[in-house]
Amino acid sequence: MKIKPLKIDTNRESVVFIRKNSDFCRAIGSGILPKVELKVGDRSLYAILNTIEEDFLERDEIGLCTYTTKMLGLPAGSEVEVRYPEPVRSVELVRAKVRGEVLGAQDYRYIIRDIIENRYSKVELTAFVVGCSQGAMDRDEIAYLSEAMADLGENLEWGREMVVDKHCIGGVPGNRTTMLAVPIVAAYGLPIPKTSSRAITSPSGTADTMEVLASVDIGRSRMKEIVERENGCLAWGGAFALSPADDIIISVERPLNMDAPGQMIASILSKKKAAGSTHVLLDIPVGDTAKVRSYSKAISLRKLFEYVGGKMGLHVEVILTDGSQPIGRGIGPSLEARDVMSILANEPGAPEDLRKKGVDIAGRIIDFDPSVRGGRGRAIAEEILKSGRALDKMNRIISAQGPKTPTPPGALTKNAEAVKSGRVASIQNHLLAKCAKLAGAPQDQGAGVFCLKKVGDEVKQGEPLFRIHAEQNADLGFAWDYWQRHPEIMEIR
Amino acid sequence: MKIKPLKIDTNRESVVFIRKNSDFCRAIGSGILPKVELKVGDRSLYAILNTIEEDFLERDEIGLCTYTTKMLGLPAGSEVEVRYPEPVRSVELVRAKVRGEVLGAQDYRYIIRDIIENRYSKVELTAFVVGCSQGAMDRDEIAYLSEAMADLGENLEWGREMVVDKHCIGGVPGNRTTMLAVPIVAAYGLPIPKTSSRAITSPSGTADTMEVLASVDIGRSRMKEIVERENGCLAWGGAFALSPADDIIISVERPLNMDAPGQMIASILSKKKAAGSTHVLLDIPVGDTAKVRSYSKAISLRKLFEYVGGKMGLHVEVILTDGSQPIGRGIGPSLEARDVMSILANEPGAPEDLRKKGVDIAGRIIDFDPSVRGGRGRAIAEEILKSGRALDKMNRIISAQGPKTPTPPGALTKNAEAVKSGRVASIQNHLLAKCAKLAGAPQDQGAGVFCLKKVGDEVKQGEPLFRIHAEQNADLGFAWDYWQRHPEIMEIR
Repeated sequence: MKIKPLKIDTNRESVVFIRKNSDFCRAIGSGILPKVELKVGDRSLYAILNTIEEDFLERDEIGLCTYTTKMLGLPAGSEVEVRYPEPVRSVELVRAKVRGEVLGAQDYRYIIRDIIENRYSKVELTAFVVGCSQGAMDRDEIAYLSEAMADLGENLEWGREMVVDKHCIGGVPGNRTTMLAVPIVAAYGLPIPKTSSRAITSPSGTADTMEVLASVDIGRSRMKEIVERENGCLAWGGAFALSPADDIIISVERPLNMDAPGQMIASILSKKKAAGSTHVLLDIPVGDTAKVRSYSKAISLRKLFEYVGGKMGLHVEVILTDGSQPIGRGIGPSLEARDVMSILANEPGAPEDLRKKGVDIAGRIIDFDPSVRGGRGRAIAEEILKSGRALDKMNRIISAQGPKTPTPPGALTKNAEAVKSGRVASIQNHLLAKCAKLAGAPQDQGAGVFCLKKVGDEVKQGEPLFRIHAEQNADLGFAWDYWQRHPEIMEIR
Repeated sequence: MKIKPLKIDTNRESVVFIRKNSDFCRAIGSGILPKVELKVGDRSLYAILNTIEEDFLERDEIGLCTYTTKMLGLPAGSEVEVRYPEPVRSVELVRAKVRGEVLGAQDYRYIIRDIIENRYSKVELTAFVVGCSQGAMDRDEIAYLSEAMADLGENLEWGREMVVDKHCIGGVPGNRTTMLAVPIVAAYGLPIPKTSSRAITSPSGTADTMEVLASVDIGRSRMKEIVERENGCLAWGGAFALSPADDIIISVERPLNMDAPGQMIASILSKKKAAGSTHVLLDIPVGDTAKVRSYSKAISLRKLFEYVGGKMGLHVEVILTDGSQPIGRGIGPSLEARDVMSILANEPGAPEDLRKKGVDIAGRIIDFDPSVRGGRGRAIAEEILKSGRALDKMNRIISAQGPKTPTPPGALTKNAEAVKSGRVASIQNHLLAKCAKLAGAPQDQGAGVFCLKKVGDEVKQGEPLFRIHAEQNADLGFAWDYWQRHPEIMEIR
């Protein structure tokens, strides 16, 4: 049939449209055929079939949604063979998993290959994700899944014996330690080719914040050049097909708001492995309103990370950190970038908690270096930051990636004030993050929240607790209303 | 926005199309919004949002797929309010289930109500089905789910103290005992208002086979009349909204080919309860190629059925039957209808196995009558059949439902012959069923397979084992090829 790209955005579900009176539909009869296979040469793509009786397609045309168009990469009018789909064999393995069976390394490779080749419908994908969730996978299975996800996709190579990396599992607003650790570690001399994600559900991801200062969408060869010269970079990972299965799996995890340990570990470690890392420092913040809410859960997660990393030939070290409140003062791309740059510049007003955590993490990474005496890393990191070498390194990375004129914090502001005097007893991470998102973060780089008080600080009635920044009046209103309805964001006692 | 029905068949997924440059899309910004809520007065419907940049919609129009059009039931041009969807709260319960928590009666009601109101996407629905699968639900939860499914939908009432019913969990071709039990039991005098399904994956469902003889798509009032006059009927259940959640749940179970015990029990018993039954006889065929493959599994399933039935106020009795080979000779609507009618007419060549099983089941149902001395039911059933009263009752039911001229067995035939002499050692139910489906059953009423030999029969080389009937040459070829590739359908030793 002839391809007709349609500008229909189906949210990453591969959908095609064929007329009911086409030869194809007449041949398959009235039976239920939820999926078809598209063949072009050796390539094959599975897609959900929507049959139509509308005039926007001819009888010999197959309409493709934007996602399918992108996946196929063929111009309008190209011929594609439309077939009754071969059964996707690995779905049988998913059924086995759902029944409670333990799968092997090869099983996970079959499943991941079929997922990457887009053979799974969202229903099948969901069955896989849910079937693998909470306690259903043993730790070896998590390793098999992680390895399959890492192997079946793009792999970066650095030709260095040691390539370090860091990752935070998230849940704590403002926590931009990566942008401190990368320049410190790179200035020390360890290669740290960092790829980061954009925000999925948070007010800003590292890639969003870095983008205030420099381009992050840099290609493979440019990244290689920068890392060779500067030892480090801060690139957007989405530009590479590292663990492509992960992006597809996330497309069902996100609407379900599910993040089972096995999938989370596989997602993180597969990307690290595919990015060519050898040593990874993992930050798990623990707090009542963070992703991980108890130390016992954090510890079992740590053991899982270490075990699976070991199986994959990755040296993984996990640190448990305080996730009880935001780190730093800014929440949102521009506000966070200011925090980071003020720390690198050793400005007196720079947020101390973020500074300390950034140095801690950089120090732990430097400790990976066999020539460093265990525990000395922190002092080295501290010295690199104080000396201005970290700032210098950051500026070199920024200029190599392509500097930008930073968007200033949003000019529309409103202060959230204390309704009574007392002491800040707690800050609800997820509510404050929501407030920053309502203000427009991360779409509007200047939008977000600037914390003027943190837990333990004394406040007087009427004193500002945090400032909402927005670029648009409506957004300022949304964020303000949210604060009005949720005074528990900062509890004063 | 203004409704524009589009003839786009999305396979029971509620999908709407809105232009990217509509006020609605501009207001929500670039964020991910996979779902929207449509409000018309008090009613609300959730739908997947596909944003488009095509001209077949105006900026103020919302395009509806055929399924959404049907669900809303409003004409083109009607105004509908499109909203950012309220979060579907019961999805939180699904997440809890996936995490391994035990849910309560009210939880299942919330979930089922949201499912019926079409608030679940297929991803969420799949998470529910998989989260409830294999061993994840305790028996009380199965009862809660069954009751919620029965209550939230249409309920039939008969004003009789005792209303009997039967059900077979399926997997054995030809097994049309319902069409024997209903006339026998109705002739005895117990009300048996039977609703049956069409084939989902089999070559014929009871509704398909009955449809060879009479209309099965009879409305509620007509069914009531017939049952009042004749005590029994053989109607298609799809005409009623009995356990509507079940149909929605099946739409994800079917593509996954999953049929977990909890869901199966809830599906069956919710329909029985909603159909107003008080006493149910359940047939679980056990065999190597049946749905249930071991007696130990069948027994634990029996206990679950009895327990859940009891909780729901249903008297459920379960019989385990021989599921090692097809029952009767015909497989496919017309061939099965012939088997049934020949037994009711006491014809000498009628298949004895089907006759015996039909009488057994009718007898067990008659035993439900408190005035019958335990175990006497079978003799009563035998007598009713022999006397011709069952045939008479069947003819009255047929004529009340609207008689049809039966389609004869397909005139295109080909015999599957023994490649060697010996004894039939086994018959593979699922393969023989597949062969009948390839021949055109149940779409072509005359298509199917007629068994000339059964397990234990002696055969000589070249002697026919079964006859394929088709109405179309191509289908005869498909079925024949399948037999050629699968001589193990009937093993001769």
